[in-house]
Amino acid sequence: MKKIILFLLCIGLSVNGYTQNEDEKQLKEIYNQALTDGKAYDWLNYLSNQIGGRLSGSLQAQEAVEYTKAQLDSLGLDRVWLQPVKVPKWVRGTPEFAYFETSPGLSTNVPICALGGSVATPLQGIKAGVVEVQGIEDLQKLGKAKIEGNIVFYNRPMDPTVISTFASYSGCVDQRYSGAEEAAKYGAVGIIVRSMNLRLDDYPHTGSMSYGDTPVSKRIPAAAISTKGAELLSTTLKLNTEIQFYFKQNCKQFNDVDSFNVIGEIKGSEFPNEIMVVGGHLDSWDLGDGSHDDGAGCVQSMDVLRLLKATGYKPKRTIRAVLFMNEENGLRGGNKYAEVASGKKEKHVFALESDAGGFTPRGFSFDCSDENLKQVHSWKSLFEPYYIHLFEKGYSGADIRPLKSDDMVLAGLRPDSQRYFVHHHAENDTFEHVNERELELGAATMASLVYLFDKYGIVK
Amino acid sequence: MKKIILFLLCIGLSVNGYTQNEDEKQLKEIYNQALTDGKAYDWLNYLSNQIGGRLSGSLQAQEAVEYTKAQLDSLGLDRVWLQPVKVPKWVRGTPEFAYFETSPGLSTNVPICALGGSVATPLQGIKAGVVEVQGIEDLQKLGKAKIEGNIVFYNRPMDPTVISTFASYSGCVDQRYSGAEEAAKYGAVGIIVRSMNLRLDDYPHTGSMSYGDTPVSKRIPAAAISTKGAELLSTTLKLNTEIQFYFKQNCKQFNDVDSFNVIGEIKGSEFPNEIMVVGGHLDSWDLGDGSHDDGAGCVQSMDVLRLLKATGYKPKRTIRAVLFMNEENGLRGGNKYAEVASGKKEKHVFALESDAGGFTPRGFSFDCSDENLKQVHSWKSLFEPYYIHLFEKGYSGADIRPLKSDDMVLAGLRPDSQRYFVHHHAENDTFEHVNERELELGAATMASLVYLFDKYGIVK
Ligand SMILES: [Zn+2]
Ligand SMILES: [Zn+2]
Repeated sequence: MKKIILFLLCIGLSVNGYTQNEDEKQLKEIYNQALTDGKAYDWLNYLSNQIGGRLSGSLQAQEAVEYTKAQLDSLGLDRVWLQPVKVPKWVRGTPEFAYFETSPGLSTNVPICALGGSVATPLQGIKAGVVEVQGIEDLQKLGKAKIEGNIVFYNRPMDPTVISTFASYSGCVDQRYSGAEEAAKYGAVGIIVRSMNLRLDDYPHTGSMSYGDTPVSKRIPAAAISTKGAELLSTTLKLNTEIQFYFKQNCKQFNDVDSFNVIGEIKGSEFPNEIMVVGGHLDSWDLGDGSHDDGAGCVQSMDVLRLLKATGYKPKRTIRAVLFMNEENGLRGGNKYAEVASGKKEKHVFALESDAGGFTPRGFSFDCSDENLKQVHSWKSLFEPYYIHLFEKGYSGADIRPLKSDDMVLAGLRPDSQRYFVHHHAENDTFEHVNERELELGAATMASLVYLFDKYGIVK
Repeated sequence: MKKIILFLLCIGLSVNGYTQNEDEKQLKEIYNQALTDGKAYDWLNYLSNQIGGRLSGSLQAQEAVEYTKAQLDSLGLDRVWLQPVKVPKWVRGTPEFAYFETSPGLSTNVPICALGGSVATPLQGIKAGVVEVQGIEDLQKLGKAKIEGNIVFYNRPMDPTVISTFASYSGCVDQRYSGAEEAAKYGAVGIIVRSMNLRLDDYPHTGSMSYGDTPVSKRIPAAAISTKGAELLSTTLKLNTEIQFYFKQNCKQFNDVDSFNVIGEIKGSEFPNEIMVVGGHLDSWDLGDGSHDDGAGCVQSMDVLRLLKATGYKPKRTIRAVLFMNEENGLRGGNKYAEVASGKKEKHVFALESDAGGFTPRGFSFDCSDENLKQVHSWKSLFEPYYIHLFEKGYSGADIRPLKSDDMVLAGLRPDSQRYFVHHHAENDTFEHVNERELELGAATMASLVYLFDKYGIVK
């Protein structure tokens, strides 16, 4: 009996040893392939430098759909298709313009940009006094008497002491998203929001905003001001509360237009009906070329399929790369994908999104059961050679969240976040700020997680 | 008895609990102070943009000595002083120039720069055939017959599949350091080395080289070629082995000159004779402004002292920031510091160097006993909120290594390494490539380790 147990133990050990070795080998092949023959960087170069910013409904967004479809077609996948989705079309118009006047005729220009979804100013622009606040909660304290007829200037900075810059962003973004809706209730004629940027510089950062249920006639224009502009305006206001602020923008919301999610698929060999998604969003803002947000996530997702094929791995489950349209100002692509999946009763078991920039990957955050997180932790040592160390519960991604169900694993790639908000939604989100190796390491890290979940399955 | 044990256990737990909380609080204060009121970035701005590249023996190196001394003086430390050290003085001269000729009159320029310490070419330059090799070991295979009278072109690239780029660098740097000495033995008239850079671009990367004991009359000029230049030259050679390569440089080695290490000190309150060093090197190469290599390490080390003071921590041991002179082409500063310490019988118990760029810190490598590494591992959870996760045995730093003794702890800061060799020793090692938060997180991480080793001591 003892001998049999010993024998079984030996078998067990050797099988485990073998499996671990096989996984180590597969991950090494994935990383080697990404670092020596990765395609992500070339694809991103095209998306960024040949196409550029890809705002929903724009010609560039359509070009990006066609380009990425053609690239996926060239990979020899089992299926590549476009999934139709109606998207909003908002257009910035001519460049915005702003200055403040400390006395008549003495004015200082400041860099601004319209927030996505904002209405235009009247043709001649708006000129009014400025009321600086540190957040929406200040409006009530000030009341209508002090706000009516003025421009509200939201100036709460991102908290620099928070190490994850995404957490710091979350602590400020309400000013941008709901600032206009709330200020309009107190009779403000416009709002100016400090850019969500931890660095002091001259780039205004756009981003989505909402008027909630404010009637069209009561909607007020909303713009972001660069962090340096915000500091200058705030300092000047302290010396002279009477200054006048002028801004002009002629952005416009059009009717919805046709667009697409782009999808490529490798059919599973054992469980073809179990679907694993890896994705990013193909649309971007219009100011830069959307390299970090989220060209990076798209080309990494495409490269995940290519890496699995190039390393000779045959997935048991169906693996899809999904390039979602319209994350930035509508989430129509993510919602449409989930709606179609539900309509077709597709069984999604796993989804991973990369939408935090093409920086050195540090790990993943997981929206899943404790059992599945425990399984992930059992893979930690496999990731160690690649300095991948974060495996925490947390947010996955805006586009995949609509798929959420209790028995699936949702995950988000977590790259180093220190430089993300220097570029996010601004003119300087451009290709030269993406490092090729960092981008490729991200793709390899994603492919490795997909490989492991495909091989070992999702814990029920 | 049981009650007493229980009582003692409770005391023990509460003392531990309290201590852990105190450490958590101290680290939080250090990081907060660095991220909200850090001085490292401003100092680096001055070093990089007002002074610039600080090659040993140059006017800029002397200016850097004076500037950093004045800044340390302003911190209210217990003592700030200059430690004299003779340094070599090598000067690049006028810009280098190179081209290759595929046929007479048909030439293509390529970007090169002299390696530090190289001799000049003759005034009219050198023109010769090119022999491409993948490393020093190829020379013997080719032999004198094929090498004599030619220029040896060392073209082994850094291995992209190695995740730590420093390991990849180590695998190539022998070509640069000893390439000329070895090729001269086979009658080569000059050498051209592929730049130590994982990216393909147009910047040649300089760095130190040695002629070993080659007599002066037999020394041949050595230059680095940009990675794109190397690819072009290699491709052209495959089509036409007969091409002629021309290069010209008029660099020169002068006699040694006077310089200094810059040292600031906080006297220990309990064990003033136990010395802890934190440092970087103040000299740099001359092509860029030496922001990452190693302006970053200098200003971080200075900020460690300031952070400890600003958070109200009174060290038990004596803490010194040492800005070493001449790491790049001589290590005279590091050797001098160790020599003086030994002469004065100073007891150094700890030394930490930051010389791997001002990128997001990931942890430290330690050259110390297992017991001390175990102690470090007991602090892991304190560093987790800051995403500091690497605590491995390994290399510390060139300048502090001469201090090494069996009962001291040597450590090196380990920042993310993916972008380091894009900038290292090249014209694009400049201030705009340093992110303020990443730099500050490094300083805070260093200060935290110094705090913990000061508080808990070195394990004997
Ligand atoms: Zn995004
Ligand atoms: Zn260095």
